[in-house]
Amino acid sequence: MTENVLEPLDAIFSPRSIAVVGATRTAGTVPHDIFQNILEGGFQGTVYPVSPGAKSIRGVKAYKYVLDVPDPFDLAVMVFPSSVCHLAMEQCGQRGIRAAIVISAGFREVGEAGRQREQQLKGIADKYGIRIIGPNCLGGINTDPKVRLNASFARKMPDEGSIAFVSQSGALCTAVLDYARGKHIGFSKFVSFGNKCDLSEVDLIYYLGDDPATNVILVYLEELTDARGLMQAARTVIQKTGKPILALKSGRTAAGASAAASHTGSLAGPDEFCDAIFQQAGIQRCRTIEDMFHRATALAYQPRPQTNRVAIITNAGGPGVMATDAAIDYGLEMAQFSQQTRDSFKRKLPTTANTQNPVDIIGDARSDRYQAALSSILADPDVAGAMVILTPQSMTDIREIAEEVVRTARAMPEKPLYTSFMGETDVAEGIDVLQRHHIPHYILPESMAAAMAASYRFERQSRLVRRPLPLQNDVDTATARGLLEQALEQGRQHLPEVEAGPILQAYGLPMLAGQVARSPEEAVAAAAALGCPVALKIYSRDVVHKVDSGGVALGVADPAAAADIYRALIQAVQAARPEARILGVHVQKMAPPGQEVILGLKRDPVFGPMIMFGLGGTLVEVFRDVAFRAAPLDQDDLTTMIRQVKSFPLLNGARGRPPCDIPALEAAIQRLAQLAVDCPQINELDMNPVIVQSEGQGLSIADARILL
Amino acid sequence: MTENVLEPLDAIFSPRSIAVVGATRTAGTVPHDIFQNILEGGFQGTVYPVSPGAKSIRGVKAYKYVLDVPDPFDLAVMVFPSSVCHLAMEQCGQRGIRAAIVISAGFREVGEAGRQREQQLKGIADKYGIRIIGPNCLGGINTDPKVRLNASFARKMPDEGSIAFVSQSGALCTAVLDYARGKHIGFSKFVSFGNKCDLSEVDLIYYLGDDPATNVILVYLEELTDARGLMQAARTVIQKTGKPILALKSGRTAAGASAAASHTGSLAGPDEFCDAIFQQAGIQRCRTIEDMFHRATALAYQPRPQTNRVAIITNAGGPGVMATDAAIDYGLEMAQFSQQTRDSFKRKLPTTANTQNPVDIIGDARSDRYQAALSSILADPDVAGAMVILTPQSMTDIREIAEEVVRTARAMPEKPLYTSFMGETDVAEGIDVLQRHHIPHYILPESMAAAMAASYRFERQSRLVRRPLPLQNDVDTATARGLLEQALEQGRQHLPEVEAGPILQAYGLPMLAGQVARSPEEAVAAAAALGCPVALKIYSRDVVHKVDSGGVALGVADPAAAADIYRALIQAVQAARPEARILGVHVQKMAPPGQEVILGLKRDPVFGPMIMFGLGGTLVEVFRDVAFRAAPLDQDDLTTMIRQVKSFPLLNGARGRPPCDIPALEAAIQRLAQLAVDCPQINELDMNPVIVQSEGQGLSIADARILL
Repeated sequence: MTENVLEPLDAIFSPRSIAVVGATRTAGTVPHDIFQNILEGGFQGTVYPVSPGAKSIRGVKAYKYVLDVPDPFDLAVMVFPSSVCHLAMEQCGQRGIRAAIVISAGFREVGEAGRQREQQLKGIADKYGIRIIGPNCLGGINTDPKVRLNASFARKMPDEGSIAFVSQSGALCTAVLDYARGKHIGFSKFVSFGNKCDLSEVDLIYYLGDDPATNVILVYLEELTDARGLMQAARTVIQKTGKPILALKSGRTAAGASAAASHTGSLAGPDEFCDAIFQQAGIQRCRTIEDMFHRATALAYQPRPQTNRVAIITNAGGPGVMATDAAIDYGLEMAQFSQQTRDSFKRKLPTTANTQNPVDIIGDARSDRYQAALSSILADPDVAGAMVILTPQSMTDIREIAEEVVRTARAMPEKPLYTSFMGETDVAEGIDVLQRHHIPHYILPESMAAAMAASYRFERQSRLVRRPLPLQNDVDTATARGLLEQALEQGRQHLPEVEAGPILQAYGLPMLAGQVARSPEEAVAAAAALGCPVALKIYSRDVVHKVDSGGVALGVADPAAAADIYRALIQAVQAARPEARILGVHVQKMAPPGQEVILGLKRDPVFGPMIMFGLGGTLVEVFRDVAFRAAPLDQDDLTTMIRQVKSFPLLNGARGRPPCDIPALEAAIQRLAQLAVDCPQINELDMNPVIVQSEGQGLSIADARILL
Repeated sequence: MTENVLEPLDAIFSPRSIAVVGATRTAGTVPHDIFQNILEGGFQGTVYPVSPGAKSIRGVKAYKYVLDVPDPFDLAVMVFPSSVCHLAMEQCGQRGIRAAIVISAGFREVGEAGRQREQQLKGIADKYGIRIIGPNCLGGINTDPKVRLNASFARKMPDEGSIAFVSQSGALCTAVLDYARGKHIGFSKFVSFGNKCDLSEVDLIYYLGDDPATNVILVYLEELTDARGLMQAARTVIQKTGKPILALKSGRTAAGASAAASHTGSLAGPDEFCDAIFQQAGIQRCRTIEDMFHRATALAYQPRPQTNRVAIITNAGGPGVMATDAAIDYGLEMAQFSQQTRDSFKRKLPTTANTQNPVDIIGDARSDRYQAALSSILADPDVAGAMVILTPQSMTDIREIAEEVVRTARAMPEKPLYTSFMGETDVAEGIDVLQRHHIPHYILPESMAAAMAASYRFERQSRLVRRPLPLQNDVDTATARGLLEQALEQGRQHLPEVEAGPILQAYGLPMLAGQVARSPEEAVAAAAALGCPVALKIYSRDVVHKVDSGGVALGVADPAAAADIYRALIQAVQAARPEARILGVHVQKMAPPGQEVILGLKRDPVFGPMIMFGLGGTLVEVFRDVAFRAAPLDQDDLTTMIRQVKSFPLLNGARGRPPCDIPALEAAIQRLAQLAVDCPQINELDMNPVIVQSEGQGLSIADARILL
């Protein structure tokens, strides 16, 4: 009906007219307050209350039905009880709108009946092409003076600013808005999407990427439903626009890791996957709301440090040391001042000042001394960013120092400048000056250093060019798929090493040579043929953990010994797992010397195929020192996942060892990732151990299993 | 001269009369402000300004010299320039006082001349038995209404309270006082001790242990000069009084670890030692000032949780999940509610509430609902402590909820109750109510959980009875000392394994059997006599790192092979270290199977003899997964240091391995600690690897070296 229909997300954030569907006259209730907030928040368009029972609400003429609204409108904000929302949605559809914010609760979050209501509502919306934010959400806010929309039940409209906040939780939003207001943090857009029955953080990230008012995007998530979509959206936005995306994901410990049959399974919780996806997406994961705003204000207000070399100015030695400790901990380095800077210190600072970095301008420093030190430091070519610490001593002219910091930051805008005025009451006025003028401020010097380090990391990451990884072309997908399909047809769930080997081989992943023996004599012959030392390992489709069942003998030095060992293994496994059907014993070459690593794959319903890498058995298990990445991988994923594990130096020639064949390892991980993408039949896969030999010598897989 | 002379620390904190030595009339300077602060802070005794140039200061008659003060006085507060302090101190001595606070700067912290002034001052004080706080300090504060002493240049007197704060940094104190005032945190005593030329944190901890006004002791340290004294003081006070001691130690990363010749040396920085000493002392180490006060208010205001099972109440799901995540991370568990509690929820809470733990009483919760949920939860026998989260939603009556929380806490005082009212402006009034009534409050739910966990850890630790460890009596101290003295007389600095062995043996630390071969033929004979497999290792006093010089061959399976290997080793070491004098080759039994560990000793000038424990070579080096303790050890030290390393499961039967002989390992560590105490000649000692066999089988030392 509207002649010029807005795109759905434009209709949500910048509607020209709104119907508040289900508004009431009872102040202090959501259906009333939402209408009031839109009206009194200064909305620049027209708002129509739709209310079956009221003639007017807050003086504005109300309409009984959606169909009664006299003019076209862009957005429906729905506050009806959940049981009748579908009726209103039907009418909205007839009115031709493209977007609705469903504030009402009582849907999926309350159980099965609610879930059905939500499906019904979504079905009607889909029928008419209406996109939904919600249900069960706080609503949305747009601070743009040309719009000024507070379609939410937040008490107050936030200040205008360049940070966008996107939240799954509505209740958290109220705390965030209050926290931010006290610190003069402004927002461009603010939205809670609740049950995300339709539009989700993925759509919002794309939208905010294109939004000229938004420079930093914050996301609070409770459940990740479309991990790959999120990754793609974040990558696209960061790459195209350079806007940082910060996310807080709660529910970290509610792992509920189901009893997993593979190593990869037991080491992989949803939280590790989430870390991997965020890393690959370029999303900065924050641990608390405070951490998130500490980083966000730094990124939104200031340029990013171009190197990790920073300077600290303080009027108190102790806090200077604390900040330095933290800076080093977080990966920053202390800049070395130039001769010019040192000369300038000599002229301008008292002789008792400590002119090393951190620069201690002494307890009686006033604003002139702060200004002198700060401008010298910011002009120093080795300094990529400055951090200013103040403690409220008797001589300290706190407000003047704050104003001087603001002036200096304005005068030298190319380098970041953060502050920590320590205390609460005495420093409050100074902090207020800083925050009003968008100088990032932190009560703790440690938090200031953490934020500077995060800004630097984002700067470094944003320079990264992701090199696509050319596919390994010598893989035989048809063979691998054929073997897997055949196993599936047989109703198999587990492929032991003997059967996993050919599939891996098809992807150029080399298992150590071996033969299946079905008698002691065959074991002796196999050992002789392969050449001792060999390993003997039980071959049974029913035994997933061979070692635990007594089914493995390593380092058999003499072919003749293989007969007795064959018998002993069979006996041990029969005792431990009487129900297991034993198909023989796998006689296999012992691995050449090298570093043991584990490679794994786990396919997750939310995260998709995830690749795991870690070092040797005990290291993996005790330290959980493993890295995950979502397949397919690019070169950066490969490089960083191998180097991210703490034990990487063991691969790289620690303590005079020969460095391992890292290119071969990278190629193997890449082949595994291709296998993961090409063969969705594989649910989990372990290659453990894989022996990485020294440079140029390649690697060998000593054991493997596949779970279908 | 005074008839009833106070003990020094009583004179410092509770003097009946004070001379402010060096006071001036110039407002805004330290020598003036200190006098003013004492006078206007409401000091209950008499204060005499001593000033060569003023007749009176702020209306109070001044005296030209200390000797002119007409009455006896207990305390001198010295604010003279550093160059004349010694003259005043001489007169103070003649007046028979026992204590002085030297505020003046210009001593050790400014270099050699200052150091000499400090020594001179200290010499005079010692002569008269005067104890000094300072120099170069902020001074001291006692909030006791019977004293009310602000002998400091802090702007304002803090509130009265039960927390004592002891700081090496004066400047930090001003920030701490301001921070605390904003949060209504009171103090019993507040003191900065600056250069600590005499009285230090050690004396202050003993004093505060006896101070009935103090319940929690906070310490900020920049340098640890008497680590053992601090440990003893903290242990004594915690054990005798149960008062928690929390410490912030800065300068963590300024390790400056000198190139150390031993593993133990390279793995041990001052910060690791500090962690160990604090752990052994029962001191809680905090990472930031905020962290310190988060824990201190919890410990000062509330009982301690008796178990780690806690409950969370929230009006917002997201923050409830965030708090739960953090609680689990920090080692707490979520309590299981009793039937009675669940029934009570059913009666009192709306059906939409989530009555699992965390309890979500939903966004429209008002104070009545908070009260109902909170009192039920605190009455539940499985709940050891409760955490209350609030987000400022439109219905939330914030102030009333705060008052209800205060009432409930008063009514049920036996369990701790912490709060997190999230936000800033809207929640400010509620937070103020909570803080005034000493309900611990945290802006972040995560910080609240961390504080609860810290209180529980202190509760658990305070129940620990330290069992003294009976000495191993079968040690031969005379032999060990004799060998070490002999080596010292020879000017030796390094004892290789062949020579370290007998010293270890004298302490019941068993090296693997071996023989020194001085020719290929002797090597063959030794291998035959010991029984293959054997190891061959170069024997040279000039080679500390045998492996790096190519001087080690392991697993020699055949005596006949020993001849060639002998020659090869000699050749390799001669090539690598041409200057080294080679004394032969050590032919040694190969270690039996077992778990490799490393035991070490490093004697530190500040920390004394420190014992190190960790698992196998690569684990130690890559993960720095080691534990330190100061020798001598008690049973708790032994137990915790072995279990503190992340790789402990490898010793304890992880993945179906046989558990190792942990009693033998404990005994070996104990013997090493005795050796460390008995033989101060040893500077560093490595036993690496030590093979711990399975239960009941003992352990063997495969290699060792001693640095003198």
